[in-house]
Amino acid sequence: MTKTYPNRVSIFEVGARDGLQNEKAVTTADKLTLIDQLSAAGLTRIEAGSFVSPKWVPQMADSGDIFRQLSKRPGVVYSALTPNLKGLELALDAGADEVAIFGAASQSFSQRNINCSIEESIERFIPVMEAAQAKQIPVRGYVSCVLGCPYEGEIQVEEVARVAEILYKMGCYEISLGDTIGVGTPLNARRMVEAVAHRVPVEKLALHFHDTYGQALANILACLETGVSVIDSSVAGLGGCPYAKGASGNLATEDLVYMLHGMGIETGIDLNALIEAGNNISQALGRVSGAKVARALTE
Amino acid sequence: MTKTYPNRVSIFEVGARDGLQNEKAVTTADKLTLIDQLSAAGLTRIEAGSFVSPKWVPQMADSGDIFRQLSKRPGVVYSALTPNLKGLELALDAGADEVAIFGAASQSFSQRNINCSIEESIERFIPVMEAAQAKQIPVRGYVSCVLGCPYEGEIQVEEVARVAEILYKMGCYEISLGDTIGVGTPLNARRMVEAVAHRVPVEKLALHFHDTYGQALANILACLETGVSVIDSSVAGLGGCPYAKGASGNLATEDLVYMLHGMGIETGIDLNALIEAGNNISQALGRVSGAKVARALTE
Repeated sequence: MTKTYPNRVSIFEVGARDGLQNEKAVTTADKLTLIDQLSAAGLTRIEAGSFVSPKWVPQMADSGDIFRQLSKRPGVVYSALTPNLKGLELALDAGADEVAIFGAASQSFSQRNINCSIEESIERFIPVMEAAQAKQIPVRGYVSCVLGCPYEGEIQVEEVARVAEILYKMGCYEISLGDTIGVGTPLNARRMVEAVAHRVPVEKLALHFHDTYGQALANILACLETGVSVIDSSVAGLGGCPYAKGASGNLATEDLVYMLHGMGIETGIDLNALIEAGNNISQALGRVSGAKVARALTE
Repeated sequence: MTKTYPNRVSIFEVGARDGLQNEKAVTTADKLTLIDQLSAAGLTRIEAGSFVSPKWVPQMADSGDIFRQLSKRPGVVYSALTPNLKGLELALDAGADEVAIFGAASQSFSQRNINCSIEESIERFIPVMEAAQAKQIPVRGYVSCVLGCPYEGEIQVEEVARVAEILYKMGCYEISLGDTIGVGTPLNARRMVEAVAHRVPVEKLALHFHDTYGQALANILACLETGVSVIDSSVAGLGGCPYAKGASGNLATEDLVYMLHGMGIETGIDLNALIEAGNNISQALGRVSGAKVARALTE
């Protein structure tokens, strides 16, 4: 059987944001070291912080300092999560290269996570999008709960495709499809991506699959056959403690890179340098890395 | 793209042997509880012990007692690892339904693991095979290092196919292909299975992939397309502590079953009962389960 995989995959590193916002707080210095080591390892797309209320996410309260103090490496894009216009202004003041907005494919999740319906959330994004576009700042769109919702269970792929298309048509340059609770399996993951690809060009899609049920890498493998070639992951599996019950569980970038390189797919990443970056931040958190590859290759 | 997956996968549960031989010792009573709960959860092929020298593997010293004391459930096959004629005799005396012999696809691994060349190991299996066949006891064959060797690195697929064919022609009813150090990735795993399937009928092959690098489930997904439909795994990921450095890392049966059921592939296993069995033995070991599915679904 002949199958086509992309020659190259672009990895969008979310450890410093989606990862660390779900961990105990680390110092600004440790975050800056992490971000610097990630870019040195060859990552060119790094989500470095989030401009949400520090009341909600105290771990991200220093995002302004992070963006101001990080040493920008040429060719690297440093991205910020910005839920609203105020967040956008703070992010741009601090020097973010790119921002992201986040919607959901589940009404119940939208209500409980950002306290409004899907439609209301999209209304709120309009001024953010307009302000970003006025300054020629690229906007990435996240869609959460694409393979299941903690409140509603199964989510219809048509609903995922509908929300993805709205964000794309609003002007998001890329739509990241999030299996927020990690419940997907390979065939339903691929069916979902195929359905979305009927509405948004597949080269504008990214996968953001959590590993809560250990399925993320298998799901990515299945989806790579659709032509999608952008994947979000988190160095050291930051965001999910490897030995906690019910940990949220980001996919470890190291394990993803190992698979891709083993398949002959380029990433531009130096795996050993990546492992070192992940081991350093894991040490700062006082635990072993959540990346199996890192544990296997570290003496 | 249309792909064919098996409708049903047969899981060969190795936790009580390949798992527990790599953990600290647990009591005979805890092992018996585990084996009973595994069969109650629907597993019909259970490796329950190993008749090797207790000097080498003290964790398996009570294998005779295990086989004598376990409550056999109708339709369940209880298997024993038997490296030599003495081991076979002990296993049959104790009441094992089936035995297994283990060869390697790597000369260096064979030398260091069982202290002889591949050819010498096969010579030694002949009397074991003859004695088993005389008593109509099925013999399973393991081939280790099929995707890489800790001493030699890469292993040629032709060598894997050659050793697998020898064991099959000797009379093994099934050949389990072991990625002993878990280094494989999806495309080389599938190529290896395809190469072996030219020499041994694919319905006589099993996959025994370790998760040391986090790749096992993705590798299995890729190999399921070849028609292989028997998979070895270890409840709770026994045999690899989830938070140890360089843990050997068996694939957790729970995570495998979750993927297969999500793909509409039958296993005959009750996932909740399996999780409970895994959580109980993990508790006996004083640690959390190595199965992500178990951690996600356990309150």
